[in-house]
Amino acid sequence: MTTTGEAPARKLTAKGRATRDRIIKAAAELMYEHGAQNTNNEQIRIAAGVSGSQLTRHFPTKESLVRAVLARQADVIRARHQVPEFAELDSFAALRRWADTFTASLDMVRGGCTFGSLAAEVVKTEPSYRDAVSDGFEQWQELFRRGLSIMRERGELRPDADPVALTHLIAAAFQGGALLDQAVGDSKPLRDALYGALAYVESFATRP
Amino acid sequence: MTTTGEAPARKLTAKGRATRDRIIKAAAELMYEHGAQNTNNEQIRIAAGVSGSQLTRHFPTKESLVRAVLARQADVIRARHQVPEFAELDSFAALRRWADTFTASLDMVRGGCTFGSLAAEVVKTEPSYRDAVSDGFEQWQELFRRGLSIMRERGELRPDADPVALTHLIAAAFQGGALLDQAVGDSKPLRDALYGALAYVESFATRP
Repeated sequence: MTTTGEAPARKLTAKGRATRDRIIKAAAELMYEHGAQNTNNEQIRIAAGVSGSQLTRHFPTKESLVRAVLARQADVIRARHQVPEFAELDSFAALRRWADTFTASLDMVRGGCTFGSLAAEVVKTEPSYRDAVSDGFEQWQELFRRGLSIMRERGELRPDADPVALTHLIAAAFQGGALLDQAVGDSKPLRDALYGALAYVESFATRP
Repeated sequence: MTTTGEAPARKLTAKGRATRDRIIKAAAELMYEHGAQNTNNEQIRIAAGVSGSQLTRHFPTKESLVRAVLARQADVIRARHQVPEFAELDSFAALRRWADTFTASLDMVRGGCTFGSLAAEVVKTEPSYRDAVSDGFEQWQELFRRGLSIMRERGELRPDADPVALTHLIAAAFQGGALLDQAVGDSKPLRDALYGALAYVESFATRP
């Protein structure tokens, strides 16, 4: 990832880093709620409790801030998937628990996926967003690919189950379902899409 | 749909209507390429070959224009689905032909779904966009629900096949797959997602 126009995080003092993190967190919340387009410096400054000069020192351009928010949301999502109850996403039960957790979240109805909805909003506007978007989706999908590969190695999935293709179905069902949820203000599209995708994955089980 | 601030199309002369359509078409292309956010009046005016006053007479606000573009893209998409080779989307073969056609389109790799990518960009910014987005998705999904219902009535799909739930899976796989395609610049995510979704639909076939 390039750092054009952005203060490199690793050269910051502890205090500077805390300020930077506070700005990114405030920006992430505002952009999730209203879209990146409808989020301005003044709102971010107030929400983060920083001065205008602090904001522009850390993020001289909106582009640098949007990229930092995309990277943060990708990290947050990865962390939300790496919790004990989902194990390594390497069993049918773990995948069901994952789907249960995310379809129960009202976030999907209100604002879509915290990463995907921002990604979809900005993907056309800057080439560097496309890299950040692609990186984020890649990191997330890697969790499913790995889990499904482990299941196939253990013989729980048939040899003709393709972890890459099945991951694409799960990821697309999630992103598209979250968009449909957001549009209609109802959680049924995401639930139907995700449980349909998992039922298809389960159709490759060696034991019914 | 409200018409706040927008000249009602039905009261226009033939010439006025042609101008209005030209503006919407030019705006749709620019917004698809660069996003609504990065499309301004001047670009639309030049692409449509109209004066600034013509543009603002038809669309006094950007909001009114974005809503008209969403409505147009929904119409275009419906028309692209109602062609002889897709029949009524009421057979496994027709659904496969539909998937073949849309996954072969480079549009998905370049800019995502012509309706869904704009929908995802703007859905958070104005309450009236949410209505237009929801209407567009609804019209599109209705085509699949109807086709799947016909197949179930004919006994080609088992009674436990749920046309609503299966449509949500197909629609989500398409929208999410198109977003992933656009992010990575490759058509594999959409193809994997869509053919996975159709294979799941086919698992409800009464005859293998």
